[in-house]
Amino acid sequence: MRASIMYSAGDVRIANIPDANVVDPGDAVVRIRRACICGSDLWPYKELQSSEAGLRMGHEALGVVEDIGKDVRRVKRGDFVIVPFAYSDGTCEFCRERLQTACVHGGFFGWGTSDGAQAEALRVPQADGTLFVLPGRIDETLMPGLLTLSDVMGTGHHAAICGNVKPGTKVAVVGDGAVGLCAIIAAKRLGADQIILLGGHPDRIALGREFGATDIISERGEEAVNRVHGLTGGYGAHSVLECVGAEQAMLTAVRIARPGGAVGRVGVPHYTSTTASVDSFFHNVRIAGGPAPVRAYIEELLPDVLEGRIQPGRVFDRTVDLEGVPAGYRAMDERESIKVMIRL
Amino acid sequence: MRASIMYSAGDVRIANIPDANVVDPGDAVVRIRRACICGSDLWPYKELQSSEAGLRMGHEALGVVEDIGKDVRRVKRGDFVIVPFAYSDGTCEFCRERLQTACVHGGFFGWGTSDGAQAEALRVPQADGTLFVLPGRIDETLMPGLLTLSDVMGTGHHAAICGNVKPGTKVAVVGDGAVGLCAIIAAKRLGADQIILLGGHPDRIALGREFGATDIISERGEEAVNRVHGLTGGYGAHSVLECVGAEQAMLTAVRIARPGGAVGRVGVPHYTSTTASVDSFFHNVRIAGGPAPVRAYIEELLPDVLEGRIQPGRVFDRTVDLEGVPAGYRAMDERESIKVMIRL
Repeated sequence: MRASIMYSAGDVRIANIPDANVVDPGDAVVRIRRACICGSDLWPYKELQSSEAGLRMGHEALGVVEDIGKDVRRVKRGDFVIVPFAYSDGTCEFCRERLQTACVHGGFFGWGTSDGAQAEALRVPQADGTLFVLPGRIDETLMPGLLTLSDVMGTGHHAAICGNVKPGTKVAVVGDGAVGLCAIIAAKRLGADQIILLGGHPDRIALGREFGATDIISERGEEAVNRVHGLTGGYGAHSVLECVGAEQAMLTAVRIARPGGAVGRVGVPHYTSTTASVDSFFHNVRIAGGPAPVRAYIEELLPDVLEGRIQPGRVFDRTVDLEGVPAGYRAMDERESIKVMIRL
Repeated sequence: MRASIMYSAGDVRIANIPDANVVDPGDAVVRIRRACICGSDLWPYKELQSSEAGLRMGHEALGVVEDIGKDVRRVKRGDFVIVPFAYSDGTCEFCRERLQTACVHGGFFGWGTSDGAQAEALRVPQADGTLFVLPGRIDETLMPGLLTLSDVMGTGHHAAICGNVKPGTKVAVVGDGAVGLCAIIAAKRLGADQIILLGGHPDRIALGREFGATDIISERGEEAVNRVHGLTGGYGAHSVLECVGAEQAMLTAVRIARPGGAVGRVGVPHYTSTTASVDSFFHNVRIAGGPAPVRAYIEELLPDVLEGRIQPGRVFDRTVDLEGVPAGYRAMDERESIKVMIRL
């Protein structure tokens, strides 16, 4: 079958690899219908050391169950499913607490740790716990929105939950990428009164406004901090949603949080050490977040997607076929595209 | 009047200084009856640069109101009061939210930022907001417990609140100083099922057990982490209360927290940058805490102190008079004493 492989920074190719198969009795094989490229895929795209084997890429998908192992009970051949970016058994104590990204038998797709979803098919471990079976027939137009439930919309929602967004609060979103834009949707959905977007790209800002951002700050550093304070009565935002993962974003997030407020962060930290958690101490700012348990959030978010109340699928501003994936990486890396959908 | 002044590391003396007076119309002057030495006073005791003027020290006290400014309404001459370590106006939006340590007109006693409580008398700004007036006649035997409500017991309680201690949870307390010991009291009071104390001093451990610690870990680093995991079913504690402020304590705290758990930290960070908040990301461990709004906690904790259900005053294992303060610093610095009370 065909699948995307990253061989080194800047070098993603579609290659022929052995077909996806059931290996463990709890596996399913999912024929991919939609996948996408994640902002987090751009980190290795910038920095990956060269290797001959390369890494299979992709961790977000919709597809049809094609085969199942002998222990799979809940999922059936022909089911149309959402594949969350992490697999999980659905039964361990963390899954029962709805933190599936800490599953004791779990793991993550792509990046060489497991098979990748930018492919014709994907082996899914722990299929019964991992896959969310969609009800009935799914209209083509709903596909982009449903695809975001595999990662980016659930991740934005996690930022809002960890950032303690409540009705009537002032929220700041750091980062205008697809996750930041979904965090705006999540904050509005949870009743935020004011949503300040910190970002600098006109097309993203425009979409952010449509999603519910009430204020835009395109300045950076000190100036951005001052502007947030100016917009929030002098003290900062109750909730700051950090959707980048760079150290500067985290430092800004802490500085624009109101004393006693919260930073909900979902950007994978791309730094090893930071002063952020020292600064946060003196203002009693709480820092929470991590890999989003998107599997837990699908049930809550799905009705809003199916009924069109939220439209996170609009973060996809470009669609490619599998052979177009390398061009998709380039477009996202050069910020010509917010997020690229792959249609198979 | 006489007051403790720190002139440089290791050099605390009792000196003659001008009497405390009302300066601003919202001030009160409190004649000190009890004060104490805080673990945080030991940081400058180890490191303070020499200066001729020195710093007035002390930020925890009980005393009697001796004079009030013309704008003081609620507090009266003769009131017996608890002086929290931070002063606060009691009316700003942060005070109304019960985060008095973020008061827009507030500040901290001692360390040269304001007058210090290790003295015969203390000028208290924002007296109406700051001082907690104790009801009726206070028995001598209750003084130590009431004194802890000015900082150390409220701070331990803040660690437990920020660490999300709930009935039935597994809690780990990092640090066997007076704050850590009070955090044990707080965790037990909030219904923790298991309380693991990480500390190495036999006398402190013994008191920790009496306060409610169910397990003691005297190992450090990797070994301590493994032991906590062994005691908690393999995954760590739901709540970790970091009561030291050293980077190693914070790193340990994050590593012994269960995925999805919380670190409540009240040790003033004695480091500028750390990997702790990077490590916490991957396990969705939340980091919360800061300077405790002890003023907010007095009402809740007071009945338990007055009725003897909790005995945080037992952290004082030595009493000195004001002239004995330098010896008190030495005793705490050499770990001969957990916490020193000053009786005037």
